[in-house]
Amino acid sequence: MESVWYDGDAVGFLDQRALPRTVVRERATTVGAIVDAIRTLAVRGAPAIGIFGAYGVALAAQQYRDDRAAYEAAAAQIRAARPTAVNLAWAVDRVLAVAPGGELAEAERIHEEQRDVDRRIAEASIALFPSRGNVLTHCNTGPIATGGDGTALGCFVAAHRAGKLLHVFVDETRPLLQGARLTMFELRESGVPCTLIVDSAAAITMQRKEVRAVVVGADRIARNGDTANKIGTYGVAIAAAHHGIPFYVAAPRSSFDFTLDSGAEIPIEERSGEEVRVADGDPVYNPAFDVTPGRLVTGFITEYGVLAPPYADSIPDLEHRPPLPLPVA
Amino acid sequence: MESVWYDGDAVGFLDQRALPRTVVRERATTVGAIVDAIRTLAVRGAPAIGIFGAYGVALAAQQYRDDRAAYEAAAAQIRAARPTAVNLAWAVDRVLAVAPGGELAEAERIHEEQRDVDRRIAEASIALFPSRGNVLTHCNTGPIATGGDGTALGCFVAAHRAGKLLHVFVDETRPLLQGARLTMFELRESGVPCTLIVDSAAAITMQRKEVRAVVVGADRIARNGDTANKIGTYGVAIAAAHHGIPFYVAAPRSSFDFTLDSGAEIPIEERSGEEVRVADGDPVYNPAFDVTPGRLVTGFITEYGVLAPPYADSIPDLEHRPPLPLPVA
Repeated sequence: MESVWYDGDAVGFLDQRALPRTVVRERATTVGAIVDAIRTLAVRGAPAIGIFGAYGVALAAQQYRDDRAAYEAAAAQIRAARPTAVNLAWAVDRVLAVAPGGELAEAERIHEEQRDVDRRIAEASIALFPSRGNVLTHCNTGPIATGGDGTALGCFVAAHRAGKLLHVFVDETRPLLQGARLTMFELRESGVPCTLIVDSAAAITMQRKEVRAVVVGADRIARNGDTANKIGTYGVAIAAAHHGIPFYVAAPRSSFDFTLDSGAEIPIEERSGEEVRVADGDPVYNPAFDVTPGRLVTGFITEYGVLAPPYADSIPDLEHRPPLPLPVA
Repeated sequence: MESVWYDGDAVGFLDQRALPRTVVRERATTVGAIVDAIRTLAVRGAPAIGIFGAYGVALAAQQYRDDRAAYEAAAAQIRAARPTAVNLAWAVDRVLAVAPGGELAEAERIHEEQRDVDRRIAEASIALFPSRGNVLTHCNTGPIATGGDGTALGCFVAAHRAGKLLHVFVDETRPLLQGARLTMFELRESGVPCTLIVDSAAAITMQRKEVRAVVVGADRIARNGDTANKIGTYGVAIAAAHHGIPFYVAAPRSSFDFTLDSGAEIPIEERSGEEVRVADGDPVYNPAFDVTPGRLVTGFITEYGVLAPPYADSIPDLEHRPPLPLPVA
């Protein structure tokens, strides 16, 4: 199920808000519609947002072919649609940097690279899992979220296909239920055994269900390993550490922000209280992300392999690795 | 707002499922209706369930005046309506133990004692709070849950009335949203400043909002301090310990089960997956409670004062304290 695609004079996307009940495909024909789809989470998942944003910039390049200032303003609008994930800014900047006329090809290349990166992340993860056992994840990191096979979810599917008997506990991921709606849907489609829990049951699940590993995705990773990801990830990481369970972050190099020394510099998006409140007027604190300190992360599963601590060495090293060759078509 | 009361030939209760949108008062006229109200969480909160169950046994005593076997069978049914909270069994046993004809007076005494106990718990807690600052709680422990002023929530209200400037962060408490629906409602009614968060935002709230204390209630406490309480409490306790934040359990002596050496012996109720699942047929693990190890509890706020570790000494000592005198009416 493709989550974003280019469609001639529009960027197509799957409206993730309607899943799993309904499969709704939409077309964004303007920069405003691109921004709106990102802000309302019709398109979500850090890598998918990056690809969608790249296609959006390519669309703007086509629409503002003779007006460089308008084109750059449009790209800036798309770049700012959500602040936390770094993939969006990274992808927009890549498309902006190419010579006029090459924008769509660059966006398509970003999409193709993500497919390759997801495959490499999944391969790198297989050795981390036992031959059977329970694992746990938070939020959604599957094909819908990346435009490829997924990051954390892609790891589970690859291990399953390699014959490992994993059972995935899935946090429902309030307030927008990406785990209950999207991750359960994708795991079921892939035939991976899975069980849904409320977010706050993660700790008892670790205590009573012999969880062997936690794997999550990331929206932005600083040079010291501090990781911004969906709200709740930090609590899961603390609980995993408390139970001595390895806690992995599966993320492409494009999710690392090599300009940031620590997670304190990552902007945390706060969303409307409407997503949470029951009674009119109740004050709500609704951060969409939290930052897990690098010291709670056992390893980063990337397309270049698994990064181990100390991250102050392994992450800057990642920055300078050469580009990976795309597989021959 | 009274949550349970005796009503001549019925036990009256506030249907907590309808709050805060609607205030629905119901009458249970049969043992079946009593059990149903407890099982469906129309009446919930460990102390409130105890009082409701006690009134239910008094009703059964009236209805089965000439059939001791039927009366005892009815009491056993009520006693077994929910397995985790010990207050229900404790209250049913108290009413069962009195001479025929005295059942209603004993149930009323349990209710009156709870009001007194709640006041004493709140008083004992005030010195634990700073003169201003943020605190955090999980689930609902107010008047609706206890039939008195509440346990943990009663502490916040008392500190507020004593002039302390507390701001309460309230976990919404999935799957049934007792925090969002009931705790926010009760704090607002009491004029205590409060902010709602999703359960999984508790960790970032502790990290970024200078939370000075966590206070929760309890459904059953073992001799070593292991505490069964609403699902999610354990994760909150782990996160509090990680941040060096004191974690208090406010509970009456009737919530202590002196027959249990540890929390491993506390039965954990698993409820229907329907409370959680989004898509038909998804497997769900839905424990209604978890057990927080005593070593994560900074202190137990009881009507006898605050119990400090080592609990292997202070909890057995609590068992042998003389009954408290009720205040003169």
